[in-house]
Amino acid sequence: MDISRLMTRSMKSQSWGLKSARIMEAALNAVNPQTAVLHCLKREDTQLEVNREIYDLNTFDRVLLIGAGKAGQPMSEGVQEVLGDRLDRGLVIVKEGYKTKNNLTGRINIVEARHPIPDIRGVKGTDEVIELLENTSQNDLVICLISGGGSALLVSPVPGVSLQDLQRLTEILLASGATINEINTLRKHLDRIKGGQLARFTSPAKMISLILSDVVGDPLDVIASGPTVPDGTTFKNALAILEHYQIEDQIPAPILEYLKIGEAGMVEETPKPGEQLFAKVNNIIVGSNRTASQAALEQGLKEGFNTCVLSNFLQGEASQVGKFLATILRQVAIHNQPIPRPACIIVGGETTVTLRGDGLGGRNQEIALGSVEELDGLDGIALITLATDGGDGPSDAAGAVVTGKTLKHALTLDLDPQSFLARNDAYNFFDPLGDLLKTGPTPTNVNDLAFLFAFE
Amino acid sequence: MDISRLMTRSMKSQSWGLKSARIMEAALNAVNPQTAVLHCLKREDTQLEVNREIYDLNTFDRVLLIGAGKAGQPMSEGVQEVLGDRLDRGLVIVKEGYKTKNNLTGRINIVEARHPIPDIRGVKGTDEVIELLENTSQNDLVICLISGGGSALLVSPVPGVSLQDLQRLTEILLASGATINEINTLRKHLDRIKGGQLARFTSPAKMISLILSDVVGDPLDVIASGPTVPDGTTFKNALAILEHYQIEDQIPAPILEYLKIGEAGMVEETPKPGEQLFAKVNNIIVGSNRTASQAALEQGLKEGFNTCVLSNFLQGEASQVGKFLATILRQVAIHNQPIPRPACIIVGGETTVTLRGDGLGGRNQEIALGSVEELDGLDGIALITLATDGGDGPSDAAGAVVTGKTLKHALTLDLDPQSFLARNDAYNFFDPLGDLLKTGPTPTNVNDLAFLFAFE
Repeated sequence: MDISRLMTRSMKSQSWGLKSARIMEAALNAVNPQTAVLHCLKREDTQLEVNREIYDLNTFDRVLLIGAGKAGQPMSEGVQEVLGDRLDRGLVIVKEGYKTKNNLTGRINIVEARHPIPDIRGVKGTDEVIELLENTSQNDLVICLISGGGSALLVSPVPGVSLQDLQRLTEILLASGATINEINTLRKHLDRIKGGQLARFTSPAKMISLILSDVVGDPLDVIASGPTVPDGTTFKNALAILEHYQIEDQIPAPILEYLKIGEAGMVEETPKPGEQLFAKVNNIIVGSNRTASQAALEQGLKEGFNTCVLSNFLQGEASQVGKFLATILRQVAIHNQPIPRPACIIVGGETTVTLRGDGLGGRNQEIALGSVEELDGLDGIALITLATDGGDGPSDAAGAVVTGKTLKHALTLDLDPQSFLARNDAYNFFDPLGDLLKTGPTPTNVNDLAFLFAFE
Repeated sequence: MDISRLMTRSMKSQSWGLKSARIMEAALNAVNPQTAVLHCLKREDTQLEVNREIYDLNTFDRVLLIGAGKAGQPMSEGVQEVLGDRLDRGLVIVKEGYKTKNNLTGRINIVEARHPIPDIRGVKGTDEVIELLENTSQNDLVICLISGGGSALLVSPVPGVSLQDLQRLTEILLASGATINEINTLRKHLDRIKGGQLARFTSPAKMISLILSDVVGDPLDVIASGPTVPDGTTFKNALAILEHYQIEDQIPAPILEYLKIGEAGMVEETPKPGEQLFAKVNNIIVGSNRTASQAALEQGLKEGFNTCVLSNFLQGEASQVGKFLATILRQVAIHNQPIPRPACIIVGGETTVTLRGDGLGGRNQEIALGSVEELDGLDGIALITLATDGGDGPSDAAGAVVTGKTLKHALTLDLDPQSFLARNDAYNFFDPLGDLLKTGPTPTNVNDLAFLFAFE
């Protein structure tokens, strides 16, 4: 990425503009899907080292590549760069529009499907993945690539249940107030792949699952609905959730029927923690919010900042988070605490925005807008927010920059932060100020980052 | 204070209970009003040193003591301890119930008045203060004691305006959505003392104003409406605020009349920054949220913790703040960032609670409740919240303690944090768990503190 894309119009005229852009660049580079895979797979002749485990390629008849997720294409390129001709066949499902000019050999197929609402292309692609895994033996090695969006792309409804049934279920669950964990419990018990079940198809081969995490805290069983990870939930749990929200009579009949058959033990449960099935599965996070923030930490130190990571678990209402981050930056600016100037504090995670208006913006821009008043008047500081996928909400911005002068600048243009906040219109607040960060789409997604800078 | 009052029932059985209690004790001791005054006034024979400025007591005919605020009594005791017989006369107004067994000589009078809604006793007390200051000469020294509540206690409406008029104005302003700064602009222009005007009565004497700050960020012009501090606002500003909120026709006629007379220049403006009047005034913060957190920082280091102060400017919706603090503590617990275990992170400020239910609680208990789910499952951590005045909201608790086991403990008692949060009922969530901190009232108030602990 051209570094200038990591600077807002206003940053380009600031002495600190380039330094802070380089820190963001380091963060994004570390989680570039291809780089992240290369960083994780080390090969020396026939020895493949993955996270300290050694695989001797000579012992395998075939090496197969499968996977699903937005980052499937560049991750595949990374694997091919390491394994080259040693890769026998592969099929990876990506979101439509994410299949790029193909640097892959004919043995690796990239197919597109719909996201976030799955379509028949996803089902067909998944069938082909399953087909590819037929007749795997213990002398095969399967490399699986998982990234954000994988749950919708790698989809295979259980017999009798249609895609439309699943979609209707999701709508009802969301409306009922069910949590994402509860929704996933249902999903895992209505799909042939999710909740560790992919391992049934790869067994008895060894599997290396390379995971680019787009979920805060990197819970393996949640990312892409954990196709390669043991599932702690049961059919009984799934039915209890429907009962709890009193939606049993709303959901499509085939779903309820299937879950009851499952509870009666007439279809197999998802594989559970401790099952032998997973002995040959090696799940590895190749990139995550933490990878990005650690890279930013290193670059921050190189750029001469006192640098720390405050959290990779950021959550909560975006505007409130912005206010909170501002109170910390105020402390740095005025009291040189928790670290003294020049300071760079890195925070990562994923906030939420409760929609109150019909403005344009996203989580990251709203964090920035929430900080404007609290940062007013502080000298030599900047708060920068960044959606690592380059797209914050439905806007063409990735985030925004706020300094101690932002409020005054805005008021000269008659822009009142409170009224923009009230209608979730951060984009149109920052756009006229030249304070929007417009990176364009990146090939990765490890959620959001925020940087608190206090300069010398 | 007995240290056991700084432990919850549950903390007493924990190895870390006493350590964390000692850190909180250090924080509270540092802002004990008497201690804080003693810490600030150094006397050697006739030399009185205040914040590096030396006053030769021999050069003064009289030393007078005035003041207002909840901490007036112990602050007065501190001054008397230093000046003893050198104090000639004094009158300090405190909140009703705050006048304690008198250790003061007959020359120092403590009178009680109503707070937060002022009453005639406050007006009378203020008249007596003004009377006491009659005939001050440049050979007098006035020591002024300001603490939380001072604005309601030191009150002297301008001619023609009644206490009831002022009260009605405040109600209308609050309902209109006016900010506290806007409300203060009005107050300062409708009172004979606020907004630096007390200095008119002490002039030409020298004045030392000792201020115990109960306002986040310690803005001198805001604490007790800044009776000894220049005022940047004008009659014109005051009228513009009424116009802005379109409430001119609602407010009592004498108020509008007085403000218009003021704008026309027919009564004196409040004294402005740079005015000669303040050359003889020495405003000193003797204690604040920062004082308390710095003392906690020192004690934390003594107790063997890696310790830092994250902010003294904490604000925002309490439950959201709780969530945010939990994401930081989670980072410490899992990644040893921003500081490694054993860690103590100190945060101070004042949050707000948007009332949604009729439960029992306060800001500090609600911060704790907001953190429960995010802290679930973490080992060897605790989040403790503390209202430094010992009273959090209308409850008899000062705060609460949350650990990684709190959620499970609560669920065994069928207590669901979300439903308690929904009705602002933190007290009744923590009470059955034995996790409420009940210090009883303290003599001080420097707002709120929160402590994030990760133990070895």
